[in-house]
Amino acid sequence: MQITINETRLISELEALAAISELEPPAITRIVYSDADRRAREWFRGLCDEAGLSVRVDAIGNVFVRWEGSEPELAAIGTGSHIDAIPHAGAYDGTVGVLGGLEAIRALQESGMKLRRPIELLLFTAEEPTRFGIGCFGSRLLAGTLDSGAGERLNDPDGATLNELRAAAGYKGTVESVRLPKDHYAGFVELHIEQGPLLEREGIPIGIVTNIAAPSGLRITIEGEGGHAGALLMPYRKDAFCAAAEIVLAVERSAKSTGAIDTCGTVGKCSIHPGAVNSVPSRVQMEVDVRDTDEARRDGVLARIREACADVAARRGVKVEIEVVNADAPAESSRTIVDAISQSADELGLPWKKMVSRAYHDSLFMARIAPMAMIFIPCRDGVSHRPDEYAKPEDIANGARVLAHTLAKLAQA
Amino acid sequence: MQITINETRLISELEALAAISELEPPAITRIVYSDADRRAREWFRGLCDEAGLSVRVDAIGNVFVRWEGSEPELAAIGTGSHIDAIPHAGAYDGTVGVLGGLEAIRALQESGMKLRRPIELLLFTAEEPTRFGIGCFGSRLLAGTLDSGAGERLNDPDGATLNELRAAAGYKGTVESVRLPKDHYAGFVELHIEQGPLLEREGIPIGIVTNIAAPSGLRITIEGEGGHAGALLMPYRKDAFCAAAEIVLAVERSAKSTGAIDTCGTVGKCSIHPGAVNSVPSRVQMEVDVRDTDEARRDGVLARIREACADVAARRGVKVEIEVVNADAPAESSRTIVDAISQSADELGLPWKKMVSRAYHDSLFMARIAPMAMIFIPCRDGVSHRPDEYAKPEDIANGARVLAHTLAKLAQA
Repeated sequence: MQITINETRLISELEALAAISELEPPAITRIVYSDADRRAREWFRGLCDEAGLSVRVDAIGNVFVRWEGSEPELAAIGTGSHIDAIPHAGAYDGTVGVLGGLEAIRALQESGMKLRRPIELLLFTAEEPTRFGIGCFGSRLLAGTLDSGAGERLNDPDGATLNELRAAAGYKGTVESVRLPKDHYAGFVELHIEQGPLLEREGIPIGIVTNIAAPSGLRITIEGEGGHAGALLMPYRKDAFCAAAEIVLAVERSAKSTGAIDTCGTVGKCSIHPGAVNSVPSRVQMEVDVRDTDEARRDGVLARIREACADVAARRGVKVEIEVVNADAPAESSRTIVDAISQSADELGLPWKKMVSRAYHDSLFMARIAPMAMIFIPCRDGVSHRPDEYAKPEDIANGARVLAHTLAKLAQA
Repeated sequence: MQITINETRLISELEALAAISELEPPAITRIVYSDADRRAREWFRGLCDEAGLSVRVDAIGNVFVRWEGSEPELAAIGTGSHIDAIPHAGAYDGTVGVLGGLEAIRALQESGMKLRRPIELLLFTAEEPTRFGIGCFGSRLLAGTLDSGAGERLNDPDGATLNELRAAAGYKGTVESVRLPKDHYAGFVELHIEQGPLLEREGIPIGIVTNIAAPSGLRITIEGEGGHAGALLMPYRKDAFCAAAEIVLAVERSAKSTGAIDTCGTVGKCSIHPGAVNSVPSRVQMEVDVRDTDEARRDGVLARIREACADVAARRGVKVEIEVVNADAPAESSRTIVDAISQSADELGLPWKKMVSRAYHDSLFMARIAPMAMIFIPCRDGVSHRPDEYAKPEDIANGARVLAHTLAKLAQA
């Protein structure tokens, strides 16, 4: 039977979703539980209804769109991604996996195929760490890697808790109820843009992810001493921002020191107290992100950052506190699913290569409860998390084609 | 005649003003044209009405509280300070000069003295640079050191212009109308906490300011390249925040390099774009404050900071733009007013010393249109711009006593 992806429909839906944003496109912002998030979910719900798919929403807003199989008692095959977007993001990160997944299901429906297993498309709540400081809390809770206290413990920059915000957004039920049983999915496949330059550079349309890098996040708080910028004299200062500047450079130096191309270290967020032109900063808080495909190497970088913090604290007389926000283990893909993807690409005549995901994804956590693999497609210049993020319609459609074929294979097994 | 300062009244008024804040005391925040600013001004107006003083408010909110002299056609003697407070400030910076000035006038009224010249108490709008990025715009406009385009050019972080905000706060008239004629004041005296440790350390209750240091402000914008914190690899990065960190340390190093105790360099404010944990910073904007009692030495520090910026830009492939926000000349006090203050302190049996103000004040600009000097009182540990800023009731009352005697002398001359 012929599985036909409607490229025009898929691209126009990606464009429609891009228009639902807190900012004007091309700069896209959709923070979880914001008005833009709510509008995007309503719009997406409309597409699912139109396709005759049943929809379940859990207590934190994870959405499960189900196409029933001929043997509904069998474990389902999952696919999906996220639609939340960091401030000033682009239109493809996450959304390609959600709308490409929907298109894959519709293509399977329209092909007239009858699949044994149910297929479930997931829209994960908050893959991005923007609001709660921790990435993937939707899939973390599904996989049971966050304890039930998360609802009260996680809070946004304004101090509102996850529980308060999800209630305000209309989600009911306990945080515990989100967790899925280990046998819920017989397999999980996520379609995503590469967010790196390799596929484009080599002219290969399909990447098959064999490993997802191990990310770690630190929150570093520096307490110095404030005062008037004209009257607190230089020899007596304990300037928290000067201390922070040294730590920022230490993060960069530590990441580079491994000599491995896969090690990344970033300080993407920093707040200064009191934050006035004429005040010596008394307190600084920064978020540090360290990633590597090799967990031991990553932990070596973290150790060097800790050493630098201790040195700065001692030398400058400031207090440096380090909180580990997350320190996840890397994930390995399922051989079976990797093979199903490569066979699908071969059937479609599409070149593919195996690769590592340096960015992390909901699949990192889905791997804890299901055999998992990911399909990558090229994106321009490897750029992501920026308004000029771009993937070609042809590449997006090819990704959806490979996904549809893969889902069909897995759902028949 | 006896001039009697009512210490209890003055201290209780300082406490009442401290309670009018956007934050809970002891952390005080009163941003110009905010609700707290409006409430504080209304409360202050009530005190002036009670004292039978006439009040004029100009087009940006500078308040002139006048006690008429027996020869009202003579140029007035001015005193005053500000009530706006940076985020998380203390209760004494500025307010001691406003309420101490009011108390001095009331003490003169109550003494039964008849003074020749009028005395005007000024409440300056926005001494602090918090909202518009430039300090003292109230006194700058009074002194004619800002051009008439300032109403449209100055804007707050939300993009609202000075003209929009002053209109919303109810102030009418043109920005040009604020400027005072050069002969409006025959003299100007500002009472203020030292914001430094010298008076307290030496046990001297009164400081007489002979010079006000020359401040300069730079706004530095760094444009790098953003991307995903896991996927944009270290060798290809142009991280704007790493570049900023080097510049922060260069500001500190440049200020220290003069070897002079009076040189200060501070980066008190920094914003990062896009500001997400998992994004490489693409743009950073920082506010740099450099001060010195010696203008040439200060300009040497600025030159070294510019060199460092050029070096960082070249080495890291980022774009660094430097905007001069202000670069004011230092001010020298009037010999006549300094003498009037020292004679007043001598009459009251209060030890005094001459000193330099490293912080800048509205008096820096009043010096352009009137003979000026300042009275400093001790503050605990030299701390200012912090919630634990503190001045002893006795020291505050002594400051008001010296001010009242000084005003009396100047108003009879």
